[in-house]
Amino acid sequence: MILRVMQLTILFTDQAIRIANVSPGERAGALLEFQGIVRGIEDGATIGGLLYEIYQPMAERMIRRIAEELSAEHPCHGFHIVHRHGLVPTGEAAIYVRIEASHRSEAIRMLELFMNRLKAEVPIWKSGTVPC
Amino acid sequence: MILRVMQLTILFTDQAIRIANVSPGERAGALLEFQGIVRGIEDGATIGGLLYEIYQPMAERMIRRIAEELSAEHPCHGFHIVHRHGLVPTGEAAIYVRIEASHRSEAIRMLELFMNRLKAEVPIWKSGTVPC
Repeated sequence: MILRVMQLTILFTDQAIRIANVSPGERAGALLEFQGIVRGIEDGATIGGLLYEIYQPMAERMIRRIAEELSAEHPCHGFHIVHRHGLVPTGEAAIYVRIEASHRSEAIRMLELFMNRLKAEVPIWKSGTVPC
Repeated sequence: MILRVMQLTILFTDQAIRIANVSPGERAGALLEFQGIVRGIEDGATIGGLLYEIYQPMAERMIRRIAEELSAEHPCHGFHIVHRHGLVPTGEAAIYVRIEASHRSEAIRMLELFMNRLKAEVPIWKSGTVPC
């Protein structure tokens, strides 16, 4: 029996996301990092930022469940997510995801499916815009 | 007419890849970064690193062509690739790709298709292994 253990971290913060240059684990052949960044235009209007809200206990539970379900199909060694709440100014990341896997195809597929499910199933939402 | 301009950079180096924390462009809603890392096992044997060779003039031309072809379907603002040649020790990145796009789906698809074509069409190859 091969025991697959995925390292999983979930962080919610109202501060700017700091991305450290962490070395990947020894087994990782692929390291994939994604940032979703607030753009300066929302519904055609120029904005200074977006407000995000997170229902944290449920969001954490759902993220954990989704990541674990997906990693059964697309095995990953590491899955790390940071999501901001409160004001996220234009040009800054609202979300950061880092995936370590043996192969790139697993990491890419994991990211794609996770982000789709995050948007559809996890209680994290834009609660407003902030003018420039 | 909307003029789409993708910023494209290609770098080959025999040194460790340094990844800078560059701010994405104003239009970018998605920033995707991929590192392909040399693992400690190749064909079942423990290794200390891999040797890569690049036929640089053709590799650069092919990478440019592939990136431009793909960006017509999956529009990106920025596409940056660094590939090492010579010895790449275990645990270090042989390739780094950074893609900026308006939306994550374009960036993810671009990365997936680009990597598949890179492996199939571009004259970059492993020329040997180095023992521990």
